[in-house]
Amino acid sequence: MRPIGIIHSPYTKKEDAPIQGAFEPDARGEVEVFAEFEEGLKDIEGFSHLILLYHFDRAGDVKLVRPTFLDDSPHGILACRHPCRPNGIGISIVRLLRREGRILHVAEIDVLDGTPLLDIKPYVPSFDCRPDAASGWIQGKERRPKPPGRE
Amino acid sequence: MRPIGIIHSPYTKKEDAPIQGAFEPDARGEVEVFAEFEEGLKDIEGFSHLILLYHFDRAGDVKLVRPTFLDDSPHGILACRHPCRPNGIGISIVRLLRREGRILHVAEIDVLDGTPLLDIKPYVPSFDCRPDAASGWIQGKERRPKPPGRE
Repeated sequence: MRPIGIIHSPYTKKEDAPIQGAFEPDARGEVEVFAEFEEGLKDIEGFSHLILLYHFDRAGDVKLVRPTFLDDSPHGILACRHPCRPNGIGISIVRLLRREGRILHVAEIDVLDGTPLLDIKPYVPSFDCRPDAASGWIQGKERRPKPPGRE
Repeated sequence: MRPIGIIHSPYTKKEDAPIQGAFEPDARGEVEVFAEFEEGLKDIEGFSHLILLYHFDRAGDVKLVRPTFLDDSPHGILACRHPCRPNGIGISIVRLLRREGRILHVAEIDVLDGTPLLDIKPYVPSFDCRPDAASGWIQGKERRPKPPGRE
């Protein structure tokens, strides 16, 4: 694994980044793809949304069960979206505003500034959308502010 | 990066695996999480769908622009879901049928048997569903059979 680019965002501190990008439609950022991979962006302009895969490079210790930003009960790390997880891979769906060479201007970003980019996949509703999926313990808890001091 | 489990599926050959799991509701498999990570599954039972991240361990050479299963025009590897990509991380959304200890019985699987599991994230519609997203060049091409001989 090695970075194929860098994600630029307004968020330099963990406490400033939103819990999920979907709830911050105005958050803007740039996905910079390194020159050697630019060719791989061909035809990406037609997609309105992209799935970013990236490395949680500033995550703390991995704990298999822990409280999260969303509630105070401990949940399994594989049953939540917390960054401190085995293999430390994050995924975020962002809205593609425009492409400028190897820079993708995006909205709905929730990633820390300077995060190493591992992959980009086009978001395709017929592949990726499950509107009726059950949200388990997260149901109804999606939107509270981040509790202070909690990673 | 190291595997946290193994994905078991009916697909031992690339040509047998479906292009996307969403179109194969009856395809069944098991996600085996290694014992040391079992605790991380706490509360996963409440979710109906999971996002699997895994390593495309049998992918061929990376080409930045190539034809895909879905049409014959070459597209950028970051504008398609082809397995032969930088960093070789795959994502699949599967339906959770039931948990049996550290084995998750799932449906809608499209992954090769024996694929190394890197992560599991719960699928949350309010985070992950973008029903109106534009599908770019994939629009209307989601379902053709895999062309023979094409990786």
